Amino acid sequence: MVKVGVLGATGMVGQRFIQLLDNHPDFEIAALAASSRSAGKRYEDATTWYLDTPMPDSVKGMEVIETDPAKMSKDVEIVFSSLPTDFAAKVEPAYAKDFVVASNASAMRMKKDIPLVIPEVNPQFLDMIDAQQKANDWDGFIVTNPNCSTIALTLTLKPIYDNFNINRIYVSTMQAVSGAGYNGVPSMAIVDNLVPYIGGEEEKMESESLYLLGELDGSDVKPANFSLSASCHRVAVVDGHTEAVFIELDEEADIDKIKDKMANFKGLPQELDLYSAPKNPVIVKEEDDRPQPRLDRNASGGMAATVGRVRKDNAFDNSFKYVLVGHNTIRGAAGASILNAELINKQIL
Amino acid sequence: MVKVGVLGATGMVGQRFIQLLDNHPDFEIAALAASSRSAGKRYEDATTWYLDTPMPDSVKGMEVIETDPAKMSKDVEIVFSSLPTDFAAKVEPAYAKDFVVASNASAMRMKKDIPLVIPEVNPQFLDMIDAQQKANDWDGFIVTNPNCSTIALTLTLKPIYDNFNINRIYVSTMQAVSGAGYNGVPSMAIVDNLVPYIGGEEEKMESESLYLLGELDGSDVKPANFSLSASCHRVAVVDGHTEAVFIELDEEADIDKIKDKMANFKGLPQELDLYSAPKNPVIVKEEDDRPQPRLDRNASGGMAATVGRVRKDNAFDNSFKYVLVGHNTIRGAAGASILNAELINKQIL
Amino acid sequence: MVKVGVLGATGMVGQRFIQLLDNHPDFEIAALAASSRSAGKRYEDATTWYLDTPMPDSVKGMEVIETDPAKMSKDVEIVFSSLPTDFAAKVEPAYAKDFVVASNASAMRMKKDIPLVIPEVNPQFLDMIDAQQKANDWDGFIVTNPNCSTIALTLTLKPIYDNFNINRIYVSTMQAVSGAGYNGVPSMAIVDNLVPYIGGEEEKMESESLYLLGELDGSDVKPANFSLSASCHRVAVVDGHTEAVFIELDEEADIDKIKDKMANFKGLPQELDLYSAPKNPVIVKEEDDRPQPRLDRNASGGMAATVGRVRKDNAFDNSFKYVLVGHNTIRGAAGASILNAELINKQIL
Amino acid sequence: MVKVGVLGATGMVGQRFIQLLDNHPDFEIAALAASSRSAGKRYEDATTWYLDTPMPDSVKGMEVIETDPAKMSKDVEIVFSSLPTDFAAKVEPAYAKDFVVASNASAMRMKKDIPLVIPEVNPQFLDMIDAQQKANDWDGFIVTNPNCSTIALTLTLKPIYDNFNINRIYVSTMQAVSGAGYNGVPSMAIVDNLVPYIGGEEEKMESESLYLLGELDGSDVKPANFSLSASCHRVAVVDGHTEAVFIELDEEADIDKIKDKMANFKGLPQELDLYSAPKNPVIVKEEDDRPQPRLDRNASGGMAATVGRVRKDNAFDNSFKYVLVGHNTIRGAAGASILNAELINKQIL
Repeated sequence: MVKVGVLGATGMVGQRFIQLLDNHPDFEIAALAASSRSAGKRYEDATTWYLDTPMPDSVKGMEVIETDPAKMSKDVEIVFSSLPTDFAAKVEPAYAKDFVVASNASAMRMKKDIPLVIPEVNPQFLDMIDAQQKANDWDGFIVTNPNCSTIALTLTLKPIYDNFNINRIYVSTMQAVSGAGYNGVPSMAIVDNLVPYIGGEEEKMESESLYLLGELDGSDVKPANFSLSASCHRVAVVDGHTEAVFIELDEEADIDKIKDKMANFKGLPQELDLYSAPKNPVIVKEEDDRPQPRLDRNASGGMAATVGRVRKDNAFDNSFKYVLVGHNTIRGAAGASILNAELINKQIL
Repeated sequence: MVKVGVLGATGMVGQRFIQLLDNHPDFEIAALAASSRSAGKRYEDATTWYLDTPMPDSVKGMEVIETDPAKMSKDVEIVFSSLPTDFAAKVEPAYAKDFVVASNASAMRMKKDIPLVIPEVNPQFLDMIDAQQKANDWDGFIVTNPNCSTIALTLTLKPIYDNFNINRIYVSTMQAVSGAGYNGVPSMAIVDNLVPYIGGEEEKMESESLYLLGELDGSDVKPANFSLSASCHRVAVVDGHTEAVFIELDEEADIDKIKDKMANFKGLPQELDLYSAPKNPVIVKEEDDRPQPRLDRNASGGMAATVGRVRKDNAFDNSFKYVLVGHNTIRGAAGASILNAELINKQIL
Repeated sequence: MVKVGVLGATGMVGQRFIQLLDNHPDFEIAALAASSRSAGKRYEDATTWYLDTPMPDSVKGMEVIETDPAKMSKDVEIVFSSLPTDFAAKVEPAYAKDFVVASNASAMRMKKDIPLVIPEVNPQFLDMIDAQQKANDWDGFIVTNPNCSTIALTLTLKPIYDNFNINRIYVSTMQAVSGAGYNGVPSMAIVDNLVPYIGGEEEKMESESLYLLGELDGSDVKPANFSLSASCHRVAVVDGHTEAVFIELDEEADIDKIKDKMANFKGLPQELDLYSAPKNPVIVKEEDDRPQPRLDRNASGGMAATVGRVRKDNAFDNSFKYVLVGHNTIRGAAGASILNAELINKQIL
Repeated sequence: MVKVGVLGATGMVGQRFIQLLDNHPDFEIAALAASSRSAGKRYEDATTWYLDTPMPDSVKGMEVIETDPAKMSKDVEIVFSSLPTDFAAKVEPAYAKDFVVASNASAMRMKKDIPLVIPEVNPQFLDMIDAQQKANDWDGFIVTNPNCSTIALTLTLKPIYDNFNINRIYVSTMQAVSGAGYNGVPSMAIVDNLVPYIGGEEEKMESESLYLLGELDGSDVKPANFSLSASCHRVAVVDGHTEAVFIELDEEADIDKIKDKMANFKGLPQELDLYSAPKNPVIVKEEDDRPQPRLDRNASGGMAATVGRVRKDNAFDNSFKYVLVGHNTIRGAAGASILNAELINKQIL
């Protein structure tokens, strides 16, 4: 068993880490770090638990420690981070001196030598780690996962990108409120309403998805050579981002072939049979009115993206459209970091 | 005062007709028609009133009549129709023998000689009426308004289409549940959820919007020469459709100029100062997080479309994107038919 | 025209004050006060406007002043306060030296010589004002209105209390999220959920309602001689509190007579024909499934309480039950203070 | 393994039966019956699956049979029924000739010799079965479970009733929309709204709860000797009924003792260690703002009732109040019937 720590352990993504790590066959929670306000308290006393499964007994009595690498036991090998961006930028490098940092924070994404990875999409980016350790003289390293909306989207794009030539993509999201944290979206903003704006989200989707599908050339990434435009919106859904995707290819493609490539897509985590890997990263539904976030977000334990309404776009040549749902705090956050760590554990540690 | 009748008077759009016609300066409700189940009853007894303003006293005691042109008093000049499609296809032509039919039903839209009109967009389509009357030997005629999502979208496209060359449009909608009628969307489908499918809606948006912006050539319409692709979704909002719009032009355009053209757009209803005409058909907001359906649907009594987040689309050349909100049962349904009738009343009757 | 000021003008209740005072026949907004963060700015620039009617043009350009009696023009006669409790406790007395303070804050409610008033229920409590002015040597004075849930409840209790002997009351509320302020309830707490707790609310309902129905004896109030127990809950409704009420009387009463007393109840504001007074403070509905907050909260401009399901309670002797809806930020907050001010303006100023 | 059938298998409660019976250690689904519209189809083709866990593979290919006892294989011992009331009244007795009918329908509840049972509350009512079989000359028999709101309430009342003398109870419910079936509550009725009426629900709660806590005397039931009044309301929650309970006892009771009796309550299912029995039927939370339906409905797999805010009621002598949450389609429906069947399987079959 690899001992792991969780940074930001009392927050919403931190709680997901704890939920998903409970009974994990490879990882064992050995440290929970949070703000100094929580440090010193029993985890149970420091935390308002927001999930609908009970807090695991194993963490209830653990003492929360400060978010300081010096306080982290040397027995710990991997720390999972769901820290706020600014704070992550400061402390994740400090942790990387000694620990593997599997981070869901956006601070270090797409930085030189820091792999931004979805294991099914670009596991080869982990090759950056050597350069990262050398350049910084670190014993540990940092690996990051993309933004929640990007992960679900890119999972579904990968089998398309591998089999067809993509010209352009438009994507319009309908995102769950949990993505903003427990206090992020006031109910006054979302009951009988929606908010057509999520700060920074469109930029992240537009850059991260091309980067993930890009080519690793030494320690540089040459982004995929198509363009993607996003419009991001918050709707009255607790968990599960829904995205409407319009794709133009270079030439006409058969819809059944597209669906087939998506439905049968497998990546390295499936090959390696990683614990959190969904059997199929992309599930294709045939019902007219699916995917729906409440019904499909939990597919494969929240680790698969569900696709539906894959249909020809009659307005444009060589075009098709579809709708996808992905669980934003599982596959789009804590589960993404954990799958990264499982891959690292299998291949690097 | 022109006497008017309402067909489908007990339904949701029928109730909006009654609400909007209450205290109307030009129109006076003289007849309320509904199914035979309601016929013979006092309107108040036949109707479960769903609006948040009280049922007007003037209609409470009116006897509901059957939906049969023979039962309609000859004093009535205009009948407003919110009948179901199939039934509308059968009875609207029968009413047109003697009455002006201002219809919100989709049955007769885009049919030969039947004007599909948004008064700010294509009032000249009313010129079809002569041919319609002659071809059918009718004393009355039928005029229709587009689908709810199309109206709000096309209102915002008109000033763009008039001032720039549009290449392609992608639009993704987040539509209110009232659009499906009172019993249309089960709460199980929409609480903590959304439904990524609305039957027939995408096809209507894709065809009607190009038709409305097209050129009338004799009695034929040459649709606008760009393409539009729609993806339609239902969200947990009572009233007010939100649409994310991506537009590619032929050449680069200044965002401020686009906003200016939208904000200052005026059409014939504004010129003629029609009673239900909004001062500005398109309202442009500068706040990051607007428009929002709950806050913006009622702009100008629900008759204006509100636009926000007009921004350059950096993913593509010559491109920009924006978000719009329009009230689906006012500007998108009953109010649309009434504005059509106001224009007809001013120019034709 | 009486010049008035609004304290807490940028908040949610402050915005309701401005909305309701717009075009008021007796009052004219002459000053808008808010926190020092807003002071000095134009109101339009200082405020994120949350209401679905547009910000009145008349206030857009007004300069927001600090919440300091010294900054308030002496032309102002009445200041409306929606300040937070702690701050209200400090500054409302300071304003009262020179101004009439019509307060929606809870800080001074039920304090000695400070009238807590619902004009239809206990207008005679305004007699405390003389003593208040003398005791404090103030030229102005403070008058308060009750908590939002208490107002709607007590309006419906008054005609019962006047005509029957009440033994005991149980009330269970389902309250709108707007009652907690714009940021008060996170969407994570209310989408597909409810929160069975509102801090301090039950205590306020239990004490204020008996006090309002009590007897004024000199400057003391002898509360009504029955007991009331409340359980308060927050549900996914934007505006409009719903309350389930169980009442035991001393002896059997006819349900029709109870409904009749409620429906025909009139108070002093109706007699004096005050501008904001609803024609009927209590509206009784006969439909099985009413009142509903979305459909009934705006009755009489949000100033009436709507009652339904008035029915015999077969479980207990001499008992009946009903459900009520009242608009929490109109009749339950800003509108309550304004009606108090209208009464004061008519009878005292 | 006991072979079981499900009547009403395509409906919402039918789907819960299938979900809960999947991988059950004692029961194996051998027959799925539904309306003639579905009969003859594969279950997968006949059903729109509404749950957020996937349809079990084992039932996908099963042929749906008609709801006719003659079509039911004689290998089946127990049939679970979630039929509509009227239909249940007709066919459940026909099934009882040969099968054990564990019914969630209300048709046969509280009928002579038909046990209405919550295994933790009144397992001794199963003694009625002998008389039932003799009176009807049936080889099988019918056992029913109460209404969803009654079950959760009565579970929490049992430890109170056993340890204190209850004088009177008032209960006000906030019920989930799933209780009305998938199409039962239109979204127009529940977004930014609630409905203060559920047909027949108050009567069921008022009679069933006293009956369940009553004394079995031969084949008659002497209901518990206190009274209970209910007011029932539908709110925007998918699953999980919340109830506010006010209780007056005969004499003062210590709140901690009440909580202790609830928290430590165990019944026969716990003693017998039945598969679906929650470890603790009543879970007591100490947080101010719990229980909440989204967070607490799934406690113990949805089979426990969660109680919070147990507090003294200062308005009345000898009184206290609390709030409870129970899962309405698990403990309140399918899970209730299954627990009944587990008890019967252990003690009778």
